[in-house]
Amino acid sequence: MRTQVAIIGGGPSGLLLSQLLHVHGIDSIVLERRTKGHVLSRIRAGVLERGLTDLMATAGVDARLRAEGFRHDGTLITYGDRIFRLDFADLTGHSVTVYGQTEVTRDLYAAREAAGGRMVFEAEDVTLHDVDSDRPHVTCRANGDDIRIDCDFIAGCDGFHGVSRRTIPAALRQEHEKVYPFGWLGILSETPPVDPELIYANSERGFALCSMRNANLSRYYIQCDATDRPDAWSDDAFWDELRRRIPRAQAETLVTGPSIEKSIAPLRSFVCEPMQWGRLFLCGDAAHIVPPTGAKGLNTAASDVNYLYRALHRFYADGDKSGIDGYSAQALARVWKAERFSWWFSSLMHRFPDQTSFDHKMQLAELAFLESNRAAQTAMAENYVGLPY
Amino acid sequence: MRTQVAIIGGGPSGLLLSQLLHVHGIDSIVLERRTKGHVLSRIRAGVLERGLTDLMATAGVDARLRAEGFRHDGTLITYGDRIFRLDFADLTGHSVTVYGQTEVTRDLYAAREAAGGRMVFEAEDVTLHDVDSDRPHVTCRANGDDIRIDCDFIAGCDGFHGVSRRTIPAALRQEHEKVYPFGWLGILSETPPVDPELIYANSERGFALCSMRNANLSRYYIQCDATDRPDAWSDDAFWDELRRRIPRAQAETLVTGPSIEKSIAPLRSFVCEPMQWGRLFLCGDAAHIVPPTGAKGLNTAASDVNYLYRALHRFYADGDKSGIDGYSAQALARVWKAERFSWWFSSLMHRFPDQTSFDHKMQLAELAFLESNRAAQTAMAENYVGLPY
Repeated sequence: MRTQVAIIGGGPSGLLLSQLLHVHGIDSIVLERRTKGHVLSRIRAGVLERGLTDLMATAGVDARLRAEGFRHDGTLITYGDRIFRLDFADLTGHSVTVYGQTEVTRDLYAAREAAGGRMVFEAEDVTLHDVDSDRPHVTCRANGDDIRIDCDFIAGCDGFHGVSRRTIPAALRQEHEKVYPFGWLGILSETPPVDPELIYANSERGFALCSMRNANLSRYYIQCDATDRPDAWSDDAFWDELRRRIPRAQAETLVTGPSIEKSIAPLRSFVCEPMQWGRLFLCGDAAHIVPPTGAKGLNTAASDVNYLYRALHRFYADGDKSGIDGYSAQALARVWKAERFSWWFSSLMHRFPDQTSFDHKMQLAELAFLESNRAAQTAMAENYVGLPY
Repeated sequence: MRTQVAIIGGGPSGLLLSQLLHVHGIDSIVLERRTKGHVLSRIRAGVLERGLTDLMATAGVDARLRAEGFRHDGTLITYGDRIFRLDFADLTGHSVTVYGQTEVTRDLYAAREAAGGRMVFEAEDVTLHDVDSDRPHVTCRANGDDIRIDCDFIAGCDGFHGVSRRTIPAALRQEHEKVYPFGWLGILSETPPVDPELIYANSERGFALCSMRNANLSRYYIQCDATDRPDAWSDDAFWDELRRRIPRAQAETLVTGPSIEKSIAPLRSFVCEPMQWGRLFLCGDAAHIVPPTGAKGLNTAASDVNYLYRALHRFYADGDKSGIDGYSAQALARVWKAERFSWWFSSLMHRFPDQTSFDHKMQLAELAFLESNRAAQTAMAENYVGLPY
């Protein structure tokens, strides 16, 4: 097979890139290691920056997002017995859209299928070849066949554990990492959300987050021990702990019900530099991971996709190589800002095992400053709604 | 002896309080453990917030400060090969005044002496009695005499190592502390400053600060090992190291000369809660310490003095006890904000021995964000020029 851009990974980054390239007349093939059903079973964050919703519009896949997504003009933050609201619309003139990552992926699959986009599922032994030449190719096995894809470029959208990043020789990449000493225990339940907006809670007992997907589907999280197992937490134990971490008014009105999903996610910050090698470009989790606090994972992947599709478009339309040559530097400048924000917001909101009383007081003082200072609120809100591309 | 307010400590906090009380018709006696000459030999920061300059005006001691102080409308921050300026005047409408703490103290002594204020120097064995009663008193020995001062209130302005804080029973106070794993090696030299404004440098080799007292008196600092001794650093070694930590343009124009003072200061964050017990009120370093980054030490002491003199004035003028009852809570609310700022700015600018590459990247990302984002600059500048009392 032959294509212009081989895309490794059929999650939202790879699909969005494929669709944006398609809209700009560039052909691609998407290779996905799992089945489409498996990809669509993964539950992830659901807060979309305006940059991502704009990209979805450019890709022509924003109809359902516009109809079913919820515009959030602010968020609530609570600490001790205080609760305050950051009014994004007032502070920045922008808002965010609550719409599940699974739904984004579903819409992108529908668009790729409608356009006859080529996708290979259950692709095993994916291997990238001659990446540092002008004629790279990718091989894999799928449905019993050996497949070879010749291409101009390869986009590595295959996540943290994917093959793409590891194809870059170790001597040529620098990796920066922080592993947080706790996890997030999350449940999904068919209950009305406790508040129409999100609530981020810094509690004496640890972080909690109240979020939502729609009027009858709630997503709640509590900070847990990194070694906890989800099946050790009964639904009742989860709800009891959540109630202890949110203000009394919310705890008293919280509607509980059986969980329809329950899982524990680790928290990690990670960045690989550079994000390109020869004809290979990394996008999203393949190059960087953020802790989920502030929901920057998918949004930062989307910013990579934005820079990469524009760079490829400029190359194919005008023969201009500046975009592809500068991709890594351009993408990383924004990646580091998102990493900083996610690290800062995570550091602010969680209890750390080795935290001293002074460290804890610094969190409370920073929250009090954020509650009272418009400039600090604006800096926070500008990050939350998404820094400009 | 009898007075209304016994003030323990004849540094700038105690003297400023004494003078402000005097202006409002309230009598005080200042007890100082050392000689006046010793107090005036201590070299400290010299960046005054507008709150402090306003207090000096209220105290009637701002003539020389207005004549000889330097208004600074901004500061320079450098990291890697980048340098940028925070324009305080543009960002906040305010500025700071560069005027040495020693000069503040000298002006306050002159004013107290002119007004006939009572001061006891070389006061030994200072002991606070019956602090939790309505009739406290203080005893000490000075010049071979046993002295007893009966008073209505006691102000503890005697610094971190003073007796006042330790008079509060340990079970009634909470202390929060962070000791930073490095020191500041500072020199004073009779050379023109490298820049009319301050330069804060985050360098690969550690923090540096270029500051000044006047057109021919410079104060420079470099981060050093906590165990270093000043006499192990020759002037040449200091200047060489400073040059390596500041941008090339400044390094090339730096004028060096013999140091006229050289010392190493440890960096510590510390807060004691509460700041009052019975009739005793703590001010400044007696209750809290900040690392010197951002020069909040004297300024935060001044904010305590502001709340305390107003509370005492309200009590004596109107019999209104609300100010003195609420002193600790009111002072601490602002203290914690200054502690947060000093901790944040210190954490941002220094190399830490256990810093990972990710931690270092977070510093650089935060500096890049600060360089590029007006809201972040405003939040920084509002703290630097001084949050409102």
